[in-house]
Amino acid sequence: MSKLRVSIVGASGLVGECLIKALLGHPRVELKLLVSEHAAGRAIGELLPALAGECELKTVSATPAEVAQASDVVFCAKKGAETFQWVPALLDGGAKVIDIGGEFRFRDAAVYETWYKEPHACKDLLKQTVWGLPELCREEIRAAKLVGNPGCYVTSAVLALAPFVAQGLVEDAGLIVDSYSGLSGAGRQFNAKLSNLFVDVDENLRAYGVGNHKHTPEIEQGLARAAGRDLKATFVPHLAPLDRGILTTAFARPKPGLTTEKALAALKDFHTPARAPFVRVRAAVGDVNVRDVAFTNYCDVSAQVVERSGQLVVASALDNLVKGAAGQALQNMNLMSGFEETLGLKGRSL
Amino acid sequence: MSKLRVSIVGASGLVGECLIKALLGHPRVELKLLVSEHAAGRAIGELLPALAGECELKTVSATPAEVAQASDVVFCAKKGAETFQWVPALLDGGAKVIDIGGEFRFRDAAVYETWYKEPHACKDLLKQTVWGLPELCREEIRAAKLVGNPGCYVTSAVLALAPFVAQGLVEDAGLIVDSYSGLSGAGRQFNAKLSNLFVDVDENLRAYGVGNHKHTPEIEQGLARAAGRDLKATFVPHLAPLDRGILTTAFARPKPGLTTEKALAALKDFHTPARAPFVRVRAAVGDVNVRDVAFTNYCDVSAQVVERSGQLVVASALDNLVKGAAGQALQNMNLMSGFEETLGLKGRSL
Amino acid sequence: MSKLRVSIVGASGLVGECLIKALLGHPRVELKLLVSEHAAGRAIGELLPALAGECELKTVSATPAEVAQASDVVFCAKKGAETFQWVPALLDGGAKVIDIGGEFRFRDAAVYETWYKEPHACKDLLKQTVWGLPELCREEIRAAKLVGNPGCYVTSAVLALAPFVAQGLVEDAGLIVDSYSGLSGAGRQFNAKLSNLFVDVDENLRAYGVGNHKHTPEIEQGLARAAGRDLKATFVPHLAPLDRGILTTAFARPKPGLTTEKALAALKDFHTPARAPFVRVRAAVGDVNVRDVAFTNYCDVSAQVVERSGQLVVASALDNLVKGAAGQALQNMNLMSGFEETLGLKGRSL
Amino acid sequence: MSKLRVSIVGASGLVGECLIKALLGHPRVELKLLVSEHAAGRAIGELLPALAGECELKTVSATPAEVAQASDVVFCAKKGAETFQWVPALLDGGAKVIDIGGEFRFRDAAVYETWYKEPHACKDLLKQTVWGLPELCREEIRAAKLVGNPGCYVTSAVLALAPFVAQGLVEDAGLIVDSYSGLSGAGRQFNAKLSNLFVDVDENLRAYGVGNHKHTPEIEQGLARAAGRDLKATFVPHLAPLDRGILTTAFARPKPGLTTEKALAALKDFHTPARAPFVRVRAAVGDVNVRDVAFTNYCDVSAQVVERSGQLVVASALDNLVKGAAGQALQNMNLMSGFEETLGLKGRSL
Repeated sequence: MSKLRVSIVGASGLVGECLIKALLGHPRVELKLLVSEHAAGRAIGELLPALAGECELKTVSATPAEVAQASDVVFCAKKGAETFQWVPALLDGGAKVIDIGGEFRFRDAAVYETWYKEPHACKDLLKQTVWGLPELCREEIRAAKLVGNPGCYVTSAVLALAPFVAQGLVEDAGLIVDSYSGLSGAGRQFNAKLSNLFVDVDENLRAYGVGNHKHTPEIEQGLARAAGRDLKATFVPHLAPLDRGILTTAFARPKPGLTTEKALAALKDFHTPARAPFVRVRAAVGDVNVRDVAFTNYCDVSAQVVERSGQLVVASALDNLVKGAAGQALQNMNLMSGFEETLGLKGRSL
Repeated sequence: MSKLRVSIVGASGLVGECLIKALLGHPRVELKLLVSEHAAGRAIGELLPALAGECELKTVSATPAEVAQASDVVFCAKKGAETFQWVPALLDGGAKVIDIGGEFRFRDAAVYETWYKEPHACKDLLKQTVWGLPELCREEIRAAKLVGNPGCYVTSAVLALAPFVAQGLVEDAGLIVDSYSGLSGAGRQFNAKLSNLFVDVDENLRAYGVGNHKHTPEIEQGLARAAGRDLKATFVPHLAPLDRGILTTAFARPKPGLTTEKALAALKDFHTPARAPFVRVRAAVGDVNVRDVAFTNYCDVSAQVVERSGQLVVASALDNLVKGAAGQALQNMNLMSGFEETLGLKGRSL
Repeated sequence: MSKLRVSIVGASGLVGECLIKALLGHPRVELKLLVSEHAAGRAIGELLPALAGECELKTVSATPAEVAQASDVVFCAKKGAETFQWVPALLDGGAKVIDIGGEFRFRDAAVYETWYKEPHACKDLLKQTVWGLPELCREEIRAAKLVGNPGCYVTSAVLALAPFVAQGLVEDAGLIVDSYSGLSGAGRQFNAKLSNLFVDVDENLRAYGVGNHKHTPEIEQGLARAAGRDLKATFVPHLAPLDRGILTTAFARPKPGLTTEKALAALKDFHTPARAPFVRVRAAVGDVNVRDVAFTNYCDVSAQVVERSGQLVVASALDNLVKGAAGQALQNMNLMSGFEETLGLKGRSL
Repeated sequence: MSKLRVSIVGASGLVGECLIKALLGHPRVELKLLVSEHAAGRAIGELLPALAGECELKTVSATPAEVAQASDVVFCAKKGAETFQWVPALLDGGAKVIDIGGEFRFRDAAVYETWYKEPHACKDLLKQTVWGLPELCREEIRAAKLVGNPGCYVTSAVLALAPFVAQGLVEDAGLIVDSYSGLSGAGRQFNAKLSNLFVDVDENLRAYGVGNHKHTPEIEQGLARAAGRDLKATFVPHLAPLDRGILTTAFARPKPGLTTEKALAALKDFHTPARAPFVRVRAAVGDVNVRDVAFTNYCDVSAQVVERSGQLVVASALDNLVKGAAGQALQNMNLMSGFEETLGLKGRSL
């Protein structure tokens, strides 16, 4: 069987590293070009020492046309202006593109421009862009040439709340997403910029970006997609002293009659093994553990109705680098390439 | 100046250790008896190696009458039946008592019995018991013979939300307390029982006790005290991989007109330096850091109104062993003994 | 191609979990029986929640004869009396056995009895037992029916020092192995017994077992194997607040003329890619990072001669559950089964 | 009693913060000027949020003459050229100086210039400079006007090995200092420069600076001071994922007859309570825990002779910011000012 030719633009970051690992072990993938402008010509095992012995490739400098010609699928892990330059050129060259950044996650360019505070330079591409959450958009992803891979918090929030808003089990008002993330959620440069030094993060917990985190509108877009109507959510992200993983505790106001039993059934009805092969419904909120999903493409969820105070509590856990980034991107690649959706994503850690 | 004679019953646990440290450095305290039935006769520096060189006392076995006779104030760090045996006997012996456990935190014995699933054996004492949150009950504490020291999560939740429910700035419905705690929040025995092994907690985040955590009714009692009417709250505690500290993110539905500016003003109006010498109002929710309060008796708080989704977000951080236990107990001792409230609690870590 | 039938006795511990993960993704393995006496009949995804969705097997209770009949290779992860009962019966039944515990690591039963303080009940098996460090014993492993899988510290120490004692580059006297391990190095039961609670390990470092750790004689046996003569080593293990990984800093007295350059060459000459496909020689001692080997079967090593003080410093890092246990066991299984040595161990995390 | 007027030059770093905390709670100190050129005019509680409510001072910009005039003792926490400018000017102005950096730790300017790779601009001051390890240099410190406060690793290494080299119990050759440090050991700027991001340090262990760490010659100077003759040591520092604390495991070759019992006696004979009020001799190497010394000025030590391999193993633990920096500086201030040596350092954490 011929192999899918795959390249990565922006290969040397945290997500790039996780992508390379994931692709190296994928049985139907041939890794072609690892593009890294600022570190071209270096052996990948030198740039990312954990990969020494795993990959003989060197990073290269290449034009979009060269990358497109060498590849069936390209993962683009750049930001802003660079993304707007690379993505259309890769598509023009005939490659399918999975964009890891925020530039192609929104149908509405105005939302991007408002929250990312940058003009959107590829508005004409948005019509054909597909938001890459397989549990909600599988068929569109299969047919897509350009997929905007969802944000890590977003995946965690939407997989938790979508079953309830889609099935009309909760009120529209009062959706809350309270999330704690490990530090790998942000890229290395971002970590450096925010001075996420060990001495500031260790033994600490704190919120950040309340009210203006860029994942907020994407969470709302995802919930709107599930509900069929516009929804607002309050999103509060926090940093916790761990490397990988997000735990989201979401709150919603249950409609009359919703019980814990029904809430769990709603999760199972929505996230069937066929529709959500990487979502595991746990028996209780306290059974959702970051440790159980770390280094995997799983997202664990559970729910409980606290009847005395009238709240639905939904928990979800995922690995921000895997189901929150590289693993989900691979899942999208599988769908776009006609492979089995779970190929290279089960039976191994990432 | 004569010194206050102070003893501890249950001296060898995590809170006992923190209490001993705090009392050793208190300028008006003479530490008398450290009672530990199961470890009587051992040098405190042998039992608690961090205290070697700091304290020459040995743990003793003693009757309540002996302890009461030797002491002006006794901290009781026992649970259930032992507490119900010690506390009345200490009071009978003439000592003032600060009880660290849950047995004397509730006015209503039925609440205790429902949530702690044990009969309350000292109902007649509840009338004279004072719940020891100085920011709400200062004058009663000054006059009290028996103080029930508040739970750690409770302190964190009530200091965050009391200003808003007291000043009528939020709806009664929809109060949510989403908290993450370090592992020292539970005693050593409890940690062992729940098998909080390093390999299970490190790099993990998870909820527990949703809907049935014993601090739930105490949070509601505290909020009712502030509001002047009964209130319900949804409380979701979590474990995070750190030793000390609780970060609470609380949510409430703002009444019309509440802005971030007004919310911060409400915090400052309620937690004035005089009424809350250990509460610091930070300029933004993201400025509330567990690291800034660890090993201190401070509780940092801040608030933000997310207007687009209609939620008030309140953050609070404290050290579960200090403001959440031993430090607050010392603050109560100061009040009960006519000392300056902050004596031995500022200018040092604990 | 027919698949190798593989079973695990003692499947529910930390090493068992890592073994199952590793075997599930091995292209030539069919996982047959997961034997767990105390938890028989439970779905593996219920017992080890991280494996939910990955493995439909249930744990079983079975006799050694039944296990042997169903399996070509059996991993035995038991201790003491149970091991002495299982291993000979499995061999009698015709299965090859890889024993994870300490019972079959020594040629000399007296060494086992001295250090493990238990009688050795299978002395007659020791003649055919092979110590399973592929870098030193590859050909014997290929032919073995019973392999004693090396200890985690031992692997780390021997891969660091063997090149130097084998090539006569250091003095026999003065070998020192100073190691720091994450907590997964000990099994869950051992962690519970030693009360390795989070609150005792977090933000702590300490030595343990100095002079009497059971890996001491095995380190010496491995060095003797490499050197061709008996050697003594001082071994000091420590606990560090991490989950996975061992960093060993070994010291030896260089013979005249040994330089850093020659020391690095000695590592490369000994650990050629053919003889040591999972040993990576790093350019400098400071380039040996636990993070680079975590979740992999690699052992990274490097060396430096500090000429002014006359010491050779050798660093090695490995994952105690992978190259220190389950991964190395798989490597041995590959050798014993005629598979490529690296099959199922490269291109994936474990 | 009049108070000692104390100022800090370089107040906004990690050591500065710890110094301020320590000085605020010292009963005989009046904190005068907190000099911070790049952040002058800011409230200390704004610059160091953990100190909000503890200290009303603002950082100032001031000349050395102004600082000297306002102060009896000045702590100088600068480096290189700035130190060489400040220290002589402060002394000229009549203040006593405790220098926290490396500039005044060596008797021999050539050692400084070789290891710090900078010219020493104040060679004439070195004759009157006293190296500030109280356990070795108490009487000189009492009389000193300028004290060079020892390095954190150095304190840990010298307190461990000095008893043995001083009492002639070990060979001169073969001294090894293998140390693991938390991240607060380096200043915030240094952490940023080395990119000690959480994602690089968490779950990692690694060596650095082998053979060229600046503390190497200072360790040797300290051991020479104790032994009365020049000594060499091999020093290997490592980073471990914790905030505060150093654990040193030191090795030496015992002279004939040295047993564990005698080694422990040697520690006790050398570190008597009178000569070493902050050194605690623990019963076993495994009883030396970083957690027991964190946030205190104690250094815990113990020793064991491993007779079968002929090595003395000595363990020591201290808090790099306290006994390794700010606490030891306060101890020196006490000695230089005629206060009790332990004043403000016992009965509290720092």
